[in-house]
Amino acid sequence: MPALNLKSDFADADDLGTQMAAIGRRARTAARQMALASAQTKDVGLRAIADRIRASRAEILRENARDVAAARTAGQTSALIDRLTLDEARLAGIADAVEKIGALADPVGRQLAAFERPNGLLIERIAVPLGVIGVIFESRPNVTADAGALCLKAGNAAILRAGSDSHRSAMAIAKAMSEGLAEAGLPADAIQIVPTRDRAAVGAMLSGLDGCIDVIVPRGGRGLVERVQAEAKVPVFAHLDGICHVYVAAAADLAMARDVLINSKLRRTGICGAAETLLVDRACAGTHLAPLVTALLEAGCAVRGDGAVQAADPRVTQATEQDWRTEHLDAIISARVVDGLDEAITHIEANGSHHTDAIITEDAAEAARFLAEVDSAIVTHNASTQFADGGEFGFGAEIGIATGRMHARGPVGVEQLTTFKYRVHGNGQTRP
Amino acid sequence: MPALNLKSDFADADDLGTQMAAIGRRARTAARQMALASAQTKDVGLRAIADRIRASRAEILRENARDVAAARTAGQTSALIDRLTLDEARLAGIADAVEKIGALADPVGRQLAAFERPNGLLIERIAVPLGVIGVIFESRPNVTADAGALCLKAGNAAILRAGSDSHRSAMAIAKAMSEGLAEAGLPADAIQIVPTRDRAAVGAMLSGLDGCIDVIVPRGGRGLVERVQAEAKVPVFAHLDGICHVYVAAAADLAMARDVLINSKLRRTGICGAAETLLVDRACAGTHLAPLVTALLEAGCAVRGDGAVQAADPRVTQATEQDWRTEHLDAIISARVVDGLDEAITHIEANGSHHTDAIITEDAAEAARFLAEVDSAIVTHNASTQFADGGEFGFGAEIGIATGRMHARGPVGVEQLTTFKYRVHGNGQTRP
Repeated sequence: MPALNLKSDFADADDLGTQMAAIGRRARTAARQMALASAQTKDVGLRAIADRIRASRAEILRENARDVAAARTAGQTSALIDRLTLDEARLAGIADAVEKIGALADPVGRQLAAFERPNGLLIERIAVPLGVIGVIFESRPNVTADAGALCLKAGNAAILRAGSDSHRSAMAIAKAMSEGLAEAGLPADAIQIVPTRDRAAVGAMLSGLDGCIDVIVPRGGRGLVERVQAEAKVPVFAHLDGICHVYVAAAADLAMARDVLINSKLRRTGICGAAETLLVDRACAGTHLAPLVTALLEAGCAVRGDGAVQAADPRVTQATEQDWRTEHLDAIISARVVDGLDEAITHIEANGSHHTDAIITEDAAEAARFLAEVDSAIVTHNASTQFADGGEFGFGAEIGIATGRMHARGPVGVEQLTTFKYRVHGNGQTRP
Repeated sequence: MPALNLKSDFADADDLGTQMAAIGRRARTAARQMALASAQTKDVGLRAIADRIRASRAEILRENARDVAAARTAGQTSALIDRLTLDEARLAGIADAVEKIGALADPVGRQLAAFERPNGLLIERIAVPLGVIGVIFESRPNVTADAGALCLKAGNAAILRAGSDSHRSAMAIAKAMSEGLAEAGLPADAIQIVPTRDRAAVGAMLSGLDGCIDVIVPRGGRGLVERVQAEAKVPVFAHLDGICHVYVAAAADLAMARDVLINSKLRRTGICGAAETLLVDRACAGTHLAPLVTALLEAGCAVRGDGAVQAADPRVTQATEQDWRTEHLDAIISARVVDGLDEAITHIEANGSHHTDAIITEDAAEAARFLAEVDSAIVTHNASTQFADGGEFGFGAEIGIATGRMHARGPVGVEQLTTFKYRVHGNGQTRP
């Protein structure tokens, strides 16, 4: 098979605009075909995509090797190169994940509500696909398949824009996906990848391609999400920060608090659901604070605390005002003592990011108040913040976690990649 | 009671920006209090608002008379002056409508989903308020109360921006509403009206007031909606056009087709759910077309048709290409013959506005295909397009009809003015 023709740069800006507009129109047409495809056809399509990814592994790995070589030459960090690198095992995992998404329940066509009116009209609210989803990502080439498959499962078309580093890998994966779709009789254009590294293509996507993109999903670091949220003219499913809190209340079981805290902070420190701040009720600080701080320190976590927390252990350094609003994404935690539930909630509302926050308590009434009053996408009682994940929620997979308030909130699975329409069944009714 | 101090113009642009930012911050604070208010407190609040509107009728009617006088002086149309004018009866209707919204079921706190995970976590998806809703309207002062009450019922705060013509009336109604809220122990700032006619205030709202507005609802003519959709940096619930179709299929009952068509087109011609285009299947044109066209003409509706429709009656004028994409909002209909369901759907997708479209047929399979394949917010079978209304859907009231795809679609009632959060109940679970 010949090497891919990347056409990685358009001749000029006009050419870029024209090409991006054409991508948008093709996506809109493909979205309509996808929306009308049966659940079975979509499942066959996703299996065909998984098979084509497996069959194309030589080509995908060859293109990936070129990306990796370019990244090395460019002096990229080893962390980035690790995220970028594919091998046989990782590629097999990508294909398996696509197949797993194909096996999920079809979110399209669900009856979300039904009501009969006094005039005999039967009105149904039915789930239908969102339309065209734009995904902008950075160095992980697997996003092509993961995010693309979720969009397809929900009957959407996807326009993907890979980061410069993963461009060739993503193009090769997307090509295999389009081939799989075509094999199943579905539109190859339901997956398109922007064939240029030109950053202006991102701007074009954020403008919505003249109504041809319904929602944008950024997948990457803070800089990307910030740009997308600032510039997008279309809705965005994203979270900027995951400043997650664990509040240990007076009625907390100490052993449970320790386990949940350590898991929330340290299971993985680099994910958005990792805890960044510990709040301890002054009423139990005497018994609970020192053991919790010691457990964190002994597990290798730096603790930055207020005066009370510093008093609990000399290894605690002083927290700055900025620490309360910092997503450390590392083995560092900010910790303070608060005067009960109200101050805990006030702290979270003032400093948090409306992502995921946990209370540890044996007091059901206090837990209920926390769950009601903390205005975050996910609130947990006696459970780790690291459960903030579509897989853990049973959604099968997620395209990301949203902290916005519109349409999708929390883990965005296939259900949130649908919208709805009303079907009205009559027998000649007219409105008086 | 003294006349209202309107402060209707700020000293300069900086002052406007500062004042609008303060309005946004007050709304955000009030939204949080509203979100935590019980269903009962909100109901008491809405009854208190209705009572305050009734008690303030002298003041409201006096301010309205000033608006009307100014509109006359400015040479406004009689249609606008009619929309603007309040009297005792209209004001009583406004108060009654608020009370009726108060009596609706509380949309907040509904359990939208619940699932137990294999690790014992119980995850609930619970309806919570959207937050702060910006409403931008034109000459109908009643929107202040109607839209405001819907926002409050769903636990939100509202920032309202009245048109220049209705500014004094809207200020007086909003003042009564704030007083009613305060009486019930709810935040007066949950209803705020922008105290200036300066059009730059609209721009400030469309920017989202630094994250203090979650969604914008424009209520008014095409010009307003177009500006809002083009400039808003936050999500918008709106529809630009209601180019609604009635498709009469070969298997249609002629009498039913006539009744539904006449109702869809002529019950009220100026509403967004009024039909604008008639499509007739060629297979029944011989029997159905002339009677339908005659019925329209005799009911006083001008018909603009293609050749086949013109042949049915000499009074039919020739439709232009533009007619298929025109929302007449008048006693005018565009009409053409199509080659069956596929061409009908193609025509609707190419020319419609994804608002409300109807099929008339006795063929259940054909109806099912139409309802599935026409990508509109509302699709009806053997029922008038004029049922596109929150009241007719049983929502009690609506803040508008949305043709966008995100979050809300079709009539936007109190349920669509909520979002959701996840509550996770554990007993010490940590993530492996």
